[in-house]
Amino acid sequence: MFVRKVIGSLVLACSLVVSANAASDKVNWKLAMSWGSSLPPFTDAVESMAKMVHDMSGGDFVIKIDAVNKHKAAFGVMDMVKLGQYDMGHTASYYYKGKDPVLLLFTTMPFGMNAFEQYAWFYYGGGMALMEKSYEKHGMYSFPGGNTGMQMGGWFRKEIKSLDDLKGLKMRIPGFAGEIFAKLGCAVTNIAPGELYTSLERGTIDALEWVGPGMDISMGFHKIAPYYYTGWHEPATELQFLVNKAKFDKLSNKNKEILRVAMRTAAYDMMIHNFDMSATAWDKIKTEYPNIKVMTFPKPVMDAMRKANTELVAEESAKSAEFKSVVESQQAYMKKARAWTTIGEFSYIRDNQ
Amino acid sequence: MFVRKVIGSLVLACSLVVSANAASDKVNWKLAMSWGSSLPPFTDAVESMAKMVHDMSGGDFVIKIDAVNKHKAAFGVMDMVKLGQYDMGHTASYYYKGKDPVLLLFTTMPFGMNAFEQYAWFYYGGGMALMEKSYEKHGMYSFPGGNTGMQMGGWFRKEIKSLDDLKGLKMRIPGFAGEIFAKLGCAVTNIAPGELYTSLERGTIDALEWVGPGMDISMGFHKIAPYYYTGWHEPATELQFLVNKAKFDKLSNKNKEILRVAMRTAAYDMMIHNFDMSATAWDKIKTEYPNIKVMTFPKPVMDAMRKANTELVAEESAKSAEFKSVVESQQAYMKKARAWTTIGEFSYIRDNQ
Repeated sequence: MFVRKVIGSLVLACSLVVSANAASDKVNWKLAMSWGSSLPPFTDAVESMAKMVHDMSGGDFVIKIDAVNKHKAAFGVMDMVKLGQYDMGHTASYYYKGKDPVLLLFTTMPFGMNAFEQYAWFYYGGGMALMEKSYEKHGMYSFPGGNTGMQMGGWFRKEIKSLDDLKGLKMRIPGFAGEIFAKLGCAVTNIAPGELYTSLERGTIDALEWVGPGMDISMGFHKIAPYYYTGWHEPATELQFLVNKAKFDKLSNKNKEILRVAMRTAAYDMMIHNFDMSATAWDKIKTEYPNIKVMTFPKPVMDAMRKANTELVAEESAKSAEFKSVVESQQAYMKKARAWTTIGEFSYIRDNQ
Repeated sequence: MFVRKVIGSLVLACSLVVSANAASDKVNWKLAMSWGSSLPPFTDAVESMAKMVHDMSGGDFVIKIDAVNKHKAAFGVMDMVKLGQYDMGHTASYYYKGKDPVLLLFTTMPFGMNAFEQYAWFYYGGGMALMEKSYEKHGMYSFPGGNTGMQMGGWFRKEIKSLDDLKGLKMRIPGFAGEIFAKLGCAVTNIAPGELYTSLERGTIDALEWVGPGMDISMGFHKIAPYYYTGWHEPATELQFLVNKAKFDKLSNKNKEILRVAMRTAAYDMMIHNFDMSATAWDKIKTEYPNIKVMTFPKPVMDAMRKANTELVAEESAKSAEFKSVVESQQAYMKKARAWTTIGEFSYIRDNQ
């Protein structure tokens, strides 16, 4: 009896060692993304994050990725993560401004920070704490999910010479920037991505914005709209990883750190990947379509857009103290950051043309 | 006997399970860095990398960091890693150009790529493969170890109005840029960091370059040299993690990936950290010392520096096919990248002054 007890205890102890290791670390998660299964560089960032998590955990932490064709809810990612239908998501925070206007601010703002400035604000200027607070009430954590860098102002069939040229102009431009164009007299519309090329070709719309050369080139807009305007409205569009709070809190410390670091790396990488895609695509576009003209909106147009933006921000700030405090944090940070950007990165490019 | 054998086997099996887990993953490494124990943001990048590795491995992979006061060989890091005295190091590749000129190219080049462009070249433009090849013959792997972003052209006690003002100018400026200034008639010297302030104050030197506002401010140069020149010579200084090849190859796949991702993240983070430090320091300097003048070298001076750089690069390229092929890869990438930088990031800052 004594001997059998000893054997029994040893077997039990042994299996406890094995199962403790196994039980504590085996994690199977599902991620919903707002994109189709292949939309570089967005989907590459998600795949790369999941692969890093898998490899760094020795295969113990597996994240299955569902594209929009599976879950059918491109703009429902936040809700699905909140309800725990998915453990995490990859999306853009400004898609949810109807649900909570402050969320808009964690993507990008017209005339706002560029990517360097914005990452510095997130990680060293208090931005992460503000974002965490804003998402906490929705039962989730939010992390930077990849930056597009500077977005272009869009493809126009005709040159914009004055504010008058905006009156009645039919343009596809969503979000806050769309509201600005609407204030200036544009007929702002939203059109499904698959119909954009035909709409622009047939004159259903006169102009549209998409992202930048890297993601625009496959849409073909450069073949039918010769004016490519420089950016003002999305200087540093940051995507988001959203993670269900209760699910994240249940992870081991090791897996929390693996996930956190993989998301952070994938986000930075996406910024660099998109830079490379844009450099390569722009090289091709300007070689194959030498008549494309890179334009900047005339100063009176830029000034009017800036004024409209300031008014819209003031309206939202008047409605919400939380919105106001995040905007003020961003504006204060941008003021000091831009002075450094100007004497640093900007001067170098200016003097080496 | 039989019972004892069973117990013995179970104990053996049990301890094998435990020791297999332990033996495969317990790693204790030592890292030598070229810096003192506290030199933000360089040392923060190393500490943060080691902490990520520790936490993501659940404490199994520990990296002990030795500063220069311990190993006494700031510029011996590469040799110590090569010989396996240290498993890895944190240093700057251009410190080793005397050993192998091609290594210079993986840090930064005068009139070269900025940080965005250079990371895109490393990760998406073939740079990593070229760097791996150049370091393979030295028995090690090399990984980006943190970027300073744009470095400033330095602090000058007198304004540089023409090329004549460079003749006989006593300046502390190391490396390739020092050779350029020497070609233009400067008396280029190297002085230990601790003696720089006094040398500048007493006129032993007339000018010096350090890094940028974030790292310059604690040196105090702004108190005694009122002309702060914009950058040209180190537009994207990338530090390096060097890893002994045999040691890295022996790591488990899991630990390889943990180390790789931690280094990559720490490098990106350092760039953003240094941006924040510079934005904050520049804000303080220009408020407290309003007489500081931000200057750009006159065009004839910039043109002469550019010509001298081109000549030096041609000389090195004539001596080494490897140097030539890396330079050509960088220059081709920069050409297409700069066109995108110009219509993207640059135009935005220009039009929002």
